[in-house]
Amino acid sequence: MAEVAQESEAVPAPVTREQRPRVIVAGATGFAGALAAHLLMRHPRFELVAVTGRSEVGRSVEELYPQYRVALPIEELSDELLARVGPVDAAVVGYPHAAAAPTVAMLRGRGVRVLDLSADFRLSDLATYERTYGPHPRGELLAKAVYGLTELHREQIAGAEIVANPGCYPTASLLALAPLARAGLIADVVIDAKQGVSGAGRGGALEMTHLSFTGENIIPYKVAAHRHTPEIEQELSLIGFSGPVQFQAHLVPLDQGEMVSCYVSTTRPVQAGELAELYSQAYDSESFVEVVRRPPGVREVRETNICRVFAAADEHTGKVIAFGAIDNLWKGTSSQAIQNLNLMFGMPESEGIEP
Amino acid sequence: MAEVAQESEAVPAPVTREQRPRVIVAGATGFAGALAAHLLMRHPRFELVAVTGRSEVGRSVEELYPQYRVALPIEELSDELLARVGPVDAAVVGYPHAAAAPTVAMLRGRGVRVLDLSADFRLSDLATYERTYGPHPRGELLAKAVYGLTELHREQIAGAEIVANPGCYPTASLLALAPLARAGLIADVVIDAKQGVSGAGRGGALEMTHLSFTGENIIPYKVAAHRHTPEIEQELSLIGFSGPVQFQAHLVPLDQGEMVSCYVSTTRPVQAGELAELYSQAYDSESFVEVVRRPPGVREVRETNICRVFAAADEHTGKVIAFGAIDNLWKGTSSQAIQNLNLMFGMPESEGIEP
Amino acid sequence: MAEVAQESEAVPAPVTREQRPRVIVAGATGFAGALAAHLLMRHPRFELVAVTGRSEVGRSVEELYPQYRVALPIEELSDELLARVGPVDAAVVGYPHAAAAPTVAMLRGRGVRVLDLSADFRLSDLATYERTYGPHPRGELLAKAVYGLTELHREQIAGAEIVANPGCYPTASLLALAPLARAGLIADVVIDAKQGVSGAGRGGALEMTHLSFTGENIIPYKVAAHRHTPEIEQELSLIGFSGPVQFQAHLVPLDQGEMVSCYVSTTRPVQAGELAELYSQAYDSESFVEVVRRPPGVREVRETNICRVFAAADEHTGKVIAFGAIDNLWKGTSSQAIQNLNLMFGMPESEGIEP
Amino acid sequence: MAEVAQESEAVPAPVTREQRPRVIVAGATGFAGALAAHLLMRHPRFELVAVTGRSEVGRSVEELYPQYRVALPIEELSDELLARVGPVDAAVVGYPHAAAAPTVAMLRGRGVRVLDLSADFRLSDLATYERTYGPHPRGELLAKAVYGLTELHREQIAGAEIVANPGCYPTASLLALAPLARAGLIADVVIDAKQGVSGAGRGGALEMTHLSFTGENIIPYKVAAHRHTPEIEQELSLIGFSGPVQFQAHLVPLDQGEMVSCYVSTTRPVQAGELAELYSQAYDSESFVEVVRRPPGVREVRETNICRVFAAADEHTGKVIAFGAIDNLWKGTSSQAIQNLNLMFGMPESEGIEP
Repeated sequence: MAEVAQESEAVPAPVTREQRPRVIVAGATGFAGALAAHLLMRHPRFELVAVTGRSEVGRSVEELYPQYRVALPIEELSDELLARVGPVDAAVVGYPHAAAAPTVAMLRGRGVRVLDLSADFRLSDLATYERTYGPHPRGELLAKAVYGLTELHREQIAGAEIVANPGCYPTASLLALAPLARAGLIADVVIDAKQGVSGAGRGGALEMTHLSFTGENIIPYKVAAHRHTPEIEQELSLIGFSGPVQFQAHLVPLDQGEMVSCYVSTTRPVQAGELAELYSQAYDSESFVEVVRRPPGVREVRETNICRVFAAADEHTGKVIAFGAIDNLWKGTSSQAIQNLNLMFGMPESEGIEP
Repeated sequence: MAEVAQESEAVPAPVTREQRPRVIVAGATGFAGALAAHLLMRHPRFELVAVTGRSEVGRSVEELYPQYRVALPIEELSDELLARVGPVDAAVVGYPHAAAAPTVAMLRGRGVRVLDLSADFRLSDLATYERTYGPHPRGELLAKAVYGLTELHREQIAGAEIVANPGCYPTASLLALAPLARAGLIADVVIDAKQGVSGAGRGGALEMTHLSFTGENIIPYKVAAHRHTPEIEQELSLIGFSGPVQFQAHLVPLDQGEMVSCYVSTTRPVQAGELAELYSQAYDSESFVEVVRRPPGVREVRETNICRVFAAADEHTGKVIAFGAIDNLWKGTSSQAIQNLNLMFGMPESEGIEP
Repeated sequence: MAEVAQESEAVPAPVTREQRPRVIVAGATGFAGALAAHLLMRHPRFELVAVTGRSEVGRSVEELYPQYRVALPIEELSDELLARVGPVDAAVVGYPHAAAAPTVAMLRGRGVRVLDLSADFRLSDLATYERTYGPHPRGELLAKAVYGLTELHREQIAGAEIVANPGCYPTASLLALAPLARAGLIADVVIDAKQGVSGAGRGGALEMTHLSFTGENIIPYKVAAHRHTPEIEQELSLIGFSGPVQFQAHLVPLDQGEMVSCYVSTTRPVQAGELAELYSQAYDSESFVEVVRRPPGVREVRETNICRVFAAADEHTGKVIAFGAIDNLWKGTSSQAIQNLNLMFGMPESEGIEP
Repeated sequence: MAEVAQESEAVPAPVTREQRPRVIVAGATGFAGALAAHLLMRHPRFELVAVTGRSEVGRSVEELYPQYRVALPIEELSDELLARVGPVDAAVVGYPHAAAAPTVAMLRGRGVRVLDLSADFRLSDLATYERTYGPHPRGELLAKAVYGLTELHREQIAGAEIVANPGCYPTASLLALAPLARAGLIADVVIDAKQGVSGAGRGGALEMTHLSFTGENIIPYKVAAHRHTPEIEQELSLIGFSGPVQFQAHLVPLDQGEMVSCYVSTTRPVQAGELAELYSQAYDSESFVEVVRRPPGVREVRETNICRVFAAADEHTGKVIAFGAIDNLWKGTSSQAIQNLNLMFGMPESEGIEP
């Protein structure tokens, strides 16, 4: 750990036009890692030097996902590999939670800056992590990590050693709710989320992926379970709402796309005009959050890094309804990872992921 | 109207095994009417004597919907037709709201018992109707109508002149919430509904029906609008909850199927055991409401008259989540119409629509 | 084998109204076996006495497939089980090829009449089987088996010990082509087949089942491979065409449904009138083959035992195009199995599977 | 017409890096025109100066298609508009056949180079056009037009006044078959095509677009009709095959994507090695045709200008099967239009549509 601590003091300098930071993707066989590899391969500034996997070694990402263009062979992540590929500036780690942390630690030990796609570094409180996910293999690293929701933590991300890419549900939920939370308007909130099957991953359960089970279906899942809640609650508590959040996910029959519908009991009456102002202030200068004038459909943000948000006041109930629409694999995961990497290396935030 | 008033005093006697009540479907070109015609055609007891339409005259239901087996020609609903087909015991009316009422009145004037699929007779309060749908063409008939959610109004339906078939959203919502309402447990409720495109009907807007707009999409619609709320509020108020209901509908990419996810703030803490008991008491003797032990998917009730419900207490937030899954065209519309017609004519409730 | 031989001489007598033949489904965890169990459970005449599986023992079919209503526990197929359940008149065997034959042999040894869903008994020629599928574990039983395309072999099926249920592709192809073959009109034929993902089965490869791979996709598979060709060629050769058949399958993004498009170079010019006559003669008296007047869609036969066929003469090329549309799991597999079982036990062919 | 003739003699010079040819899209409300507008808007070299429509005037493309980024208002195509926008170098015309020709003529009269998306200029033979589509409003212009399948007519396209963008079916079919035709290998060919519903257009018939009709369906359409055949036959006849082509289209439940499966009876036996060589020679230097080693799925070319082709020899029948997979709206229509426009203005062929 000495090495890690030492390394972490290095202050990253913005890369120059000529420099091409060298990146690896560890865990490129899953949906998230594979797309990250694809986006890095076509990125004008990063150089993807290797992709690794815990399975499918010897095949390529484009063999597994013929829509992606990554001909590099999938290799085992090993000292030998790292020695062979030479200096590595950054790594995207696409492992499941608990499996990610040791790899992140190893890479940090070599001075590599890490964008971690798992949940391992999203929660700053170890106890909350362990209640939610079980024992944390490298809890001491939590303090080094920054929560990578770009729009909320842009500055810390720029200088971070470890960026914990947010979950897709928290991404959409927080972007939909942040303006209300900051204004102190949230008294209580219900988040009803709907997502396509890519959210279940390549290795998801039959019932969550096979078209014969998911086609023509709508399925609530993990009822009253709380995988995503702590992350949302942690971030909302930083900007103005500290209560428990009611969150419920549903699987719907599409591939990529996620809609969160947030029902907010407000601390005081809110009118449409105030809502419009709050969202406009929050997002007018953002490249990837678009406040729209009619409820967005997820299809319109498919394969983009954009989150479209829409909020309305319901006079009948006094509640505010806020929607967030994203592509769970893009803004919800892999293109947001690129957005963060761009920041970490001093590039324009939208480099390689322009709308 | 004199005739209507007179007719209404006739007390319907249960039909005998030998009798086959003669039925027409008025408005058989739309999804709801066409399916009702199909179900009546294969019904062992009813005799479908004519189907009518305001368009497509001369074609047949099975020409429009090749999966249905109704070879009868679509005719214009006219005195001439009614004279020609002879006595008619019952009619299913499948017109849009406002268009339905005059036809219902005309049929009542001839002594025909009516199952109306529109919203025209669902709200007992004329002012609420007119606030929601505009002027009511035959408001004086509201008092003759019974709200046709079989499980709530079985007895009144049996003797009714006019049965107003519930909307599909209210059907699922009320079945999911009734046990909580009756126990006085609802303090506040958010209903997030998801439905396939058949809900938009045959003539639905491009954006709500065309696969190029609806495929790979999730779209919230009619945000903070209140078409379905009055109906839900009216019925909940009869059984124990009188507040406003937050309701929001979403379109998801499938054909038939509807899920309502109800988030209930309770008047007092509720445990899983009490929930199980409440739902069991409410539905154990029902043929078409099944309390299941895991969250139901809509696919498992497709093309059935079954509503599957599931409720859970969330310890984290103290809320209760209740789900209702139906086929919006079957239990949500046309097979529920048959369930009601069975009741109206003294037949076993599940005749012709067995699970 | 002595037992088997002996048993085979027993001439089956039609069952009386009172008798309820006792059936088991061996291999009820897969799509085909599970649906067969569901159809038998709701069948008015058969009694489903046990369901077995090579996995999922202790669960029930309706736990695996919540749309089916089979609460029986899945058990291991064993002497103990067979002793416990008492006499068994028939078995549906839903194992993969090569795994099915030994079980069929065992059941025959106990005098059970078998409807086998696998390919093991479809080809009468052992050499052809072994070229296509590899070594046959019980080739000596081939002579006892009848090819179960009801419309072609009705009489042999009625008295058969073993009925080999046809593959779904051959079912649709043969029904589309039989009238042309019988008339000696086929000089050459190309069959282009399209099927939903249920054809890949519950345990199908990720690329053939996961909605993230199959959604928004069309994939040709097993190009120039010949799993289904021998079966089609065997049956066509019995009725008038003896050449090789060009067959190609494609996966399309739906669940249940199969379309075969057959392009026939004819031995002589054919006009529309003659075509109509040939198909009418072939199928007018069939309950489950419907000759339609416009190209059928697979949706209109979903969850039915019906095959809809349509044929047209193309003046431009001189070819005849014939289409066959079925539900691959129903007429293509499990409801055809019931159709055959009905025949085997002297019941009306459509008992329990009425359109 | 004098003007037109005169204009046609102008030899187009390649544009310089600094020049930005000014383009309009006439008919930007349909799927094809809207996507062309979107692609031109994000194109680094073309300047989209106006979009017009015969309906939806005043709205914008991105209002109709929220996934596109074209904020320009849809205007009426008029002298006034053309006067106002100033010089126009090129126009994409997205009207239906017969409606396109007069607009193309008008634009040619003003010296505008036209990329026409309709069928009006695809057939060089007037009689064939009129047999297929009815009277041609401006048949005299046929001689000015070049068939815009880039890979076959690259040189003529570069200098053309009018480029007739190919139909999507001919695009995929011709790219799949061209190597075989050129080698004189085609004796007879059956083309079985499958396409998503975007092929039916925004205004397509209910039965071809509504998810309740197209979901879970496979439908053959226009059986033995011949809209696409003349175009395919015209082009094949130029490169080595002059017989009639059997073509059949099918609708499958997805949005964008098209697969053609071509079954070729060959003039002599062909081996896999020769096939590989023929396809490699034909396409190794092409940017947008990729010869792949396993059957391609349409999903892997979605939203790209790529056609993936795969050919195999079937030893059993002696036939060759060749597949072509494209996105019908991209390579099949609008991105191919950009590819042609790039050529027409001397830009790199892949400008703005890089894979």
